[in-house]
Amino acid sequence: MTTEQTNVQLANALGAVAARENITDIFFVACGGSYSLMLLSQYIVEREASGIIGSALNAAEFKARAPKRLGKNSIVIACSHSGNTPETVEAAKMARDAGALTISLTHELGSPLARASEFTVSYVHAPMTMSPAHSGAVLARLTFGILKTREGNTKLGDLDEGLAALPALVDKLISDHRGRIADFAEAHKREAVVYTMASGANYGVAYSFAICLLQEMQWIHSAAIHAGEYFHGPFEVTDFDVPFIQLMGLGPSRPMDERALAFAAKYSQRMTVLDAAKLGVVSLPESVSEYLAPLVFSPILRAYADKLAEAKGHPLTVRRYMWKMEY
Amino acid sequence: MTTEQTNVQLANALGAVAARENITDIFFVACGGSYSLMLLSQYIVEREASGIIGSALNAAEFKARAPKRLGKNSIVIACSHSGNTPETVEAAKMARDAGALTISLTHELGSPLARASEFTVSYVHAPMTMSPAHSGAVLARLTFGILKTREGNTKLGDLDEGLAALPALVDKLISDHRGRIADFAEAHKREAVVYTMASGANYGVAYSFAICLLQEMQWIHSAAIHAGEYFHGPFEVTDFDVPFIQLMGLGPSRPMDERALAFAAKYSQRMTVLDAAKLGVVSLPESVSEYLAPLVFSPILRAYADKLAEAKGHPLTVRRYMWKMEY
Repeated sequence: MTTEQTNVQLANALGAVAARENITDIFFVACGGSYSLMLLSQYIVEREASGIIGSALNAAEFKARAPKRLGKNSIVIACSHSGNTPETVEAAKMARDAGALTISLTHELGSPLARASEFTVSYVHAPMTMSPAHSGAVLARLTFGILKTREGNTKLGDLDEGLAALPALVDKLISDHRGRIADFAEAHKREAVVYTMASGANYGVAYSFAICLLQEMQWIHSAAIHAGEYFHGPFEVTDFDVPFIQLMGLGPSRPMDERALAFAAKYSQRMTVLDAAKLGVVSLPESVSEYLAPLVFSPILRAYADKLAEAKGHPLTVRRYMWKMEY
Repeated sequence: MTTEQTNVQLANALGAVAARENITDIFFVACGGSYSLMLLSQYIVEREASGIIGSALNAAEFKARAPKRLGKNSIVIACSHSGNTPETVEAAKMARDAGALTISLTHELGSPLARASEFTVSYVHAPMTMSPAHSGAVLARLTFGILKTREGNTKLGDLDEGLAALPALVDKLISDHRGRIADFAEAHKREAVVYTMASGANYGVAYSFAICLLQEMQWIHSAAIHAGEYFHGPFEVTDFDVPFIQLMGLGPSRPMDERALAFAAKYSQRMTVLDAAKLGVVSLPESVSEYLAPLVFSPILRAYADKLAEAKGHPLTVRRYMWKMEY
């Protein structure tokens, strides 16, 4: 897979987006970590689109729910890393049968998902780095590309400019944070429960870290808490010894993160804070910086998980059920 | 507050819904337990509406996100029990300023939320019972009422028929389940972590039980796991001693619940299963039974929490932060 190949695939998909007579809905459909990526695009559409609706749904839920609006005026973007997730493949088939324009994101070009979709965009997979060809970035480019094509949204250029700066920025940040990451790993290697907290554009990254890195790959109990929901239930579990990873975003959701942090840090002595305002994201084009923050958090958090795995002697690759059992 | 009063309030709100020239979106906006109710309505709209879009959002997130589509073609339904939740009041004000039709659900008729909204519908509050005048039922009636008014949806009659049967059904179920509920409470009184799991129409109830009953009122670590997401991360935390409360719904999402239960029950010895198919819900009108299931689960789960609180000696009314601190 090359960056050039991804660019051509994106252009082809956007050509089909332009050719459709009418587009009213984008359904973002996937499972687990791939689903978490979709939450950013749903957020982008809700913030940026005046006509188009974005919905992010787990692929099995999408298939069961069978949204009544699904049809020829819909784009369905389906993502599966292996291209082999049965729910996602079935969702793509259902969408195509309903007349929707189907675009898949996958790492495996010959996979069932790629075959089930009219257009396929592939991506680079290297979790502790970021580039314009990584899955999250490709999905953001596709989303802004659709909004440009259908509604004349003008932010794609800024997005591309910001994405181009991410490889060097992320490498530097992970290197600069080496000491902090090692401290986190040592301090949390015996934790039974670790919460993540975020809002706005970053909720998906917090969700992914909770369910894929902590629950799946480290067998640590976890949940992503929405910073705006924190005060309406979850905050009552806060105590001096309860660990939270708090993501501080940019843009209009930041005050929610600030409010949650101000409270949580008063009662928990186990806060780990990643603040986009201190991670060089503010130097990127302002019109899209809030959307770039999760793409910076994602590889940094992977570095946290990687070091935690080392401190626990529990590699990120170990599973007890996934890919090993019938399920 | 009387049932008759609620009926008149609903009719007034639906009159305004009918009078609007065009309606394209319903935003369901609230926090915590009230937000969890909104997830059912969002599900109903997605399953039933051919033209209208439903979005459920935490009120602070809604305000921050400021959806670009919000305007005179929108209905915003905002819910706060006290009518005093600042985020929800602000969300209603923002929506009204944007030209949306604002309808609030609250227990307190003179509250700031009621004053901020054009229409207010009040409801009966008695958590271990259910009736057509309870908050979740009123919201479902409002949602189907809007779909009837705007799109000719024909299920409101079936919904009303089903809701009328719920008071007696729920009382009987809680009485019949007394032994099972007491066993659950004893068996779980020393648990540090309890997960809930559901999909489709019931995800909101599972979420509410996790964040309001377990985290907020019992200080037990928890998360609502979507049954379709379970296999894409969370299932790796399953072990013989990890407790799950599994809700088995009706309708097209049920196979997701069945798949999750089949796996979880194989590896956890701590499963508590509430199955709508065994709770008399199937005797209700079939066209709406999947939407009635969460309204049956909700009071039964409250009875579970009530007994758990007794076994723990930690009343559901105790808080350490909520209503006691600045936050």
